[in-house]
Amino acid sequence: MDAARLHNYTDDMDSALSIDSIDRPTVERSDDIIVEVAGAGWCQTDNHIIEGMWTDYVDQDLPMTLGHENTGEVIAVGDEVQTIDVGDTIICHPVMTCGTCRQCRLGEDMYCENLSFPGLTTDGGFAEYLRTSERSAIPLPDGVDPVDIAPHADAGITAYHAVKKAVDELNPGDPAIVIGVGGLGHIGLQCLDAMSAADIIALDIKEAARDLAADLGARYTVDPTSEDVSAAIDDLTDGHGAEQVIDFVGADVTTGYAPDVIAPGGDHHIVGYGGHIHEPSQALVDAEFAYRGTIVGQYTELQELVRLVERGDVELRTSRYDLGSVNAAAEQLEHGEIEGRAVITPN
Amino acid sequence: MDAARLHNYTDDMDSALSIDSIDRPTVERSDDIIVEVAGAGWCQTDNHIIEGMWTDYVDQDLPMTLGHENTGEVIAVGDEVQTIDVGDTIICHPVMTCGTCRQCRLGEDMYCENLSFPGLTTDGGFAEYLRTSERSAIPLPDGVDPVDIAPHADAGITAYHAVKKAVDELNPGDPAIVIGVGGLGHIGLQCLDAMSAADIIALDIKEAARDLAADLGARYTVDPTSEDVSAAIDDLTDGHGAEQVIDFVGADVTTGYAPDVIAPGGDHHIVGYGGHIHEPSQALVDAEFAYRGTIVGQYTELQELVRLVERGDVELRTSRYDLGSVNAAAEQLEHGEIEGRAVITPN
Amino acid sequence: MDAARLHNYTDDMDSALSIDSIDRPTVERSDDIIVEVAGAGWCQTDNHIIEGMWTDYVDQDLPMTLGHENTGEVIAVGDEVQTIDVGDTIICHPVMTCGTCRQCRLGEDMYCENLSFPGLTTDGGFAEYLRTSERSAIPLPDGVDPVDIAPHADAGITAYHAVKKAVDELNPGDPAIVIGVGGLGHIGLQCLDAMSAADIIALDIKEAARDLAADLGARYTVDPTSEDVSAAIDDLTDGHGAEQVIDFVGADVTTGYAPDVIAPGGDHHIVGYGGHIHEPSQALVDAEFAYRGTIVGQYTELQELVRLVERGDVELRTSRYDLGSVNAAAEQLEHGEIEGRAVITPN
Amino acid sequence: MDAARLHNYTDDMDSALSIDSIDRPTVERSDDIIVEVAGAGWCQTDNHIIEGMWTDYVDQDLPMTLGHENTGEVIAVGDEVQTIDVGDTIICHPVMTCGTCRQCRLGEDMYCENLSFPGLTTDGGFAEYLRTSERSAIPLPDGVDPVDIAPHADAGITAYHAVKKAVDELNPGDPAIVIGVGGLGHIGLQCLDAMSAADIIALDIKEAARDLAADLGARYTVDPTSEDVSAAIDDLTDGHGAEQVIDFVGADVTTGYAPDVIAPGGDHHIVGYGGHIHEPSQALVDAEFAYRGTIVGQYTELQELVRLVERGDVELRTSRYDLGSVNAAAEQLEHGEIEGRAVITPN
Repeated sequence: MDAARLHNYTDDMDSALSIDSIDRPTVERSDDIIVEVAGAGWCQTDNHIIEGMWTDYVDQDLPMTLGHENTGEVIAVGDEVQTIDVGDTIICHPVMTCGTCRQCRLGEDMYCENLSFPGLTTDGGFAEYLRTSERSAIPLPDGVDPVDIAPHADAGITAYHAVKKAVDELNPGDPAIVIGVGGLGHIGLQCLDAMSAADIIALDIKEAARDLAADLGARYTVDPTSEDVSAAIDDLTDGHGAEQVIDFVGADVTTGYAPDVIAPGGDHHIVGYGGHIHEPSQALVDAEFAYRGTIVGQYTELQELVRLVERGDVELRTSRYDLGSVNAAAEQLEHGEIEGRAVITPN
Repeated sequence: MDAARLHNYTDDMDSALSIDSIDRPTVERSDDIIVEVAGAGWCQTDNHIIEGMWTDYVDQDLPMTLGHENTGEVIAVGDEVQTIDVGDTIICHPVMTCGTCRQCRLGEDMYCENLSFPGLTTDGGFAEYLRTSERSAIPLPDGVDPVDIAPHADAGITAYHAVKKAVDELNPGDPAIVIGVGGLGHIGLQCLDAMSAADIIALDIKEAARDLAADLGARYTVDPTSEDVSAAIDDLTDGHGAEQVIDFVGADVTTGYAPDVIAPGGDHHIVGYGGHIHEPSQALVDAEFAYRGTIVGQYTELQELVRLVERGDVELRTSRYDLGSVNAAAEQLEHGEIEGRAVITPN
Repeated sequence: MDAARLHNYTDDMDSALSIDSIDRPTVERSDDIIVEVAGAGWCQTDNHIIEGMWTDYVDQDLPMTLGHENTGEVIAVGDEVQTIDVGDTIICHPVMTCGTCRQCRLGEDMYCENLSFPGLTTDGGFAEYLRTSERSAIPLPDGVDPVDIAPHADAGITAYHAVKKAVDELNPGDPAIVIGVGGLGHIGLQCLDAMSAADIIALDIKEAARDLAADLGARYTVDPTSEDVSAAIDDLTDGHGAEQVIDFVGADVTTGYAPDVIAPGGDHHIVGYGGHIHEPSQALVDAEFAYRGTIVGQYTELQELVRLVERGDVELRTSRYDLGSVNAAAEQLEHGEIEGRAVITPN
Repeated sequence: MDAARLHNYTDDMDSALSIDSIDRPTVERSDDIIVEVAGAGWCQTDNHIIEGMWTDYVDQDLPMTLGHENTGEVIAVGDEVQTIDVGDTIICHPVMTCGTCRQCRLGEDMYCENLSFPGLTTDGGFAEYLRTSERSAIPLPDGVDPVDIAPHADAGITAYHAVKKAVDELNPGDPAIVIGVGGLGHIGLQCLDAMSAADIIALDIKEAARDLAADLGARYTVDPTSEDVSAAIDDLTDGHGAEQVIDFVGADVTTGYAPDVIAPGGDHHIVGYGGHIHEPSQALVDAEFAYRGTIVGQYTELQELVRLVERGDVELRTSRYDLGSVNAAAEQLEHGEIEGRAVITPN
């Protein structure tokens, strides 16, 4: 079968992956499933992987097929699979988990002690077929298009996971800031609107993104290129600040907003991870705020996000690319030229 | 009356405060109370105030009487005070709150929109008499010495407040790291031991502090001057890391431990505030950990801490100084020469 | 001034209260306020008070002016009132609290150890003027009609308070049952819809109430007079049951639904209180469900509900009665003949 | 092999089970494990099963081997078992779970949609060998005796589970009532003492049980046969009531204590299940308290309880019986004659 694979780390996106012909994956364990890939979302993390930015955090054996936002039809199952049938159309939680370690037993899939992550540590979904396990599969409700929903498998639940933590701290009418209304941010904003009665303030440097935010439920928008962010938030919140900030950018400048815009006791959730935090300890103490890192959501959170999609609460705009165009997607994302999320359709 | 007052910011501790003769405070509002000070704890924050380190965060009119850890006997009350009587021996929550703003109504005393902070923004307790309000007063149970308990008014509830947040996240047998077993740390460690069944790991560069930690309930101690902290924690936790870290130091080096010692999903609570945080956003994302600033505890938390003292769960070692020796206390604290906590006894 | 007062407990609603001429209330304490009543909601609890149903729970000195859902204009304030001005239009949290007991300090207004409850334990708002305290007052935003919002002062926050507890346990797409879409229920349903992405199932014996529920956000409605409730819920939830049940009726029959309709680990919130609970302990153990009593909400919750009204998330239908028609309101409510909520307009 | 089996429901404990010779269980699925039983605790629930009290709640095919509190040595494993080795000494979480349904993924083992419960719905541990699955096994730390710890597999985690929910609501010094200091109660009391700084009040009709409670950490004890419970709790709590009640009896009389002994907002946890709840809805509303059913704890909670045992925080007194004496154990438990917990030792 054909697969788009990374052979060497590079900053050169337009020749990052090569289309190789490799063996089709087969059932190896009793709970394995084989998926004919319908859609595989291209994610900012794919660019980061290609640049080698994950080598300090995980083990990667190159060449490796990328692609960690996968949907498709199940074409084979291991002999003890009970909840999934051949023919089911599914969305895949991005990681394969053991189901027996304490973290799995707590529902913390991302902390599994025996985790493998197709597209990050093993072969992923930029290929005609994908091997994953029963524990990763969530059947899609009727009427949900598997290509359109693919990016929710990682981008979506990452946004959802951060928002869910923020919602736990938000009362009706509390101000909540969303920084960055791009691929993840526009999903997160819709989740926030559906799951709370917070007053949403969206920050983005692009006018189109701010307009989109207003359409999707933001009460206010702020343009950091023309407004002083601290003064704008002060003004919009009567000097109180925002109870929660969800930062889909994570750059030095955006993490630096925290002391100026957070209400006492609030949180600045770090979802994007391009930059750094540089703050005196005293700033966190004085306003009793937190920087909270946030990772991909749990399996059950992906179930909940699929319900939001099925309810019509979250819409996603996608652009489709065939397998041969993966590098074009990478290149366009690098330059911020993709409308919504890119999805590779290998079959 | 005599009061120890700050006239100018300085790094010179041995002449920091001067003993002035000023007017005795009187009841101004219907809920005011006047306290004859029995004990007023000297705190690291007093040194930071003297150095001018709080001028960016609060308004201060010099000269000002310092002292924010106060106990004593009530000698006068306003005409609508209902819950406190003349003659009561009390410990004072460090701030005076309005009781009507939303933050007060949520129980968040430290976020009061109309807060004044004796010893930080108005005259404090390094004086024969102190004016505060009914809402700050907690009567002491019989048998509790007001001098010995004074440091709990700020140091104690700051430690308690951080620990209470950590305890919410700790299951029995979970590893929890206490960094710094000094004035606050040794209180925090006792609270952690009384309120949870966590396995406590204490870090301190001083052997005496590590010995104290072991006496007070730490299961393990680590010496950062002779051991690699990351390797030591790995070893003590079977590679899992600690679910919670309570950092009573807050220096660059201690905040930097976080990515190496925290279990996935854990928290690094910043209590001490000498230094900075410098970390890539990706580190927080990858391990999904948080840096959580933590401030002085609530009024109800001081009630709870008084109960812990009354139950015998928390002991505090104090050294007493008369009002004329305040600068000696400042100087000795600066050099780490005080055994336990210093308490000024102005009467 | 004129006031509608209860002289004797009775089941005879059409002569329950008499219009007496009594002294106008005056400022007694430094934090008192006097309100010229704009609207005072009539509540099912007023009927229960008249019937003597609260004598086992609170002390009542008759004659007493009823009315505990009050709004109006402030015409006088005590000399230490800081946050409210003469001329402000306010909604009154129903109870007067001390602000100093531990429960108040925790934000638990309803548990205040020194509580008085105008309309239940002291004179209430079915009168031209009402005495209450600064701590009870919440200024209304521009554009909110004080008569229309009056019932939120008690009915509204009781519904809101129950819903807020339920929302804490609800994930997107979880089934949630609302029993009774009357005065409280139709507010609660709107709050639930605004604050969560739960799938709402509304039960009511009246067709008009079920139609209203569907308009206000219920995904499904069930008619207990023609459907088997257990089978209907089973069918709507694929046999799973509802995670949360909010019971605005609280009759024997509705509390009895719990074992059949609640998902494992779920809650049955008791808001209405006409009947009893009769269940074997084993039923609660086997499905690990809870019966959770729920009372009037906190001051801060009334602030949050006012925000929901101001956002347009909660609408309330009211019918107006002048002071001389209080008994007509009582009588009509007893017979279920009031459209929306009755509000007395004494001025 | 020999197994103690129930052939017919009966109230006659001294001939309840018969010792049959049946086939030894074998590995059937890739994740099965076979355990040579070291200890199998006898539980009050075994008596309830024999009496037919569970037939309304679960499906049971007789004859069936009872025994759901099992420990032993692993003698065979399925071919995909990864975390357990032949030769490991383990304690078994009482239920076998699928690991794939949403409830399992949330960590809620007891709500598994495909659950089987050895000793309740399939063959249990009153036998020489037991079949269970990898997901049920927790290796024991060195030095923990598998016979002594067996009752923790169900009795222990049931008590722990209830206590853990109560601890979440308890601040230092809050009063907490433990009703019944028998098999479960004396474990729960020790957990409560280790995990909180609550002031424990133990109720039991037996003097020996009250003495044991005092030894294990209760601050106060109450004898309901000679004291008025409501007055006693009032006296011990200054009229405030207890924040949490953990009812290991669950009889009509003990559930009836709730309105008189619970502080506002508190919970009455139902663990024992002999009787009923009969209360007016208004009682729950007025004091805003809850009756919360509580079931067997999760797998991760059994891990936590094993840690408490290993830390020395929880001790358990056991009496040993060989397999031929099962009915003697049943009979003695029925008459309250067993010291601590009975454990069957089939090998």
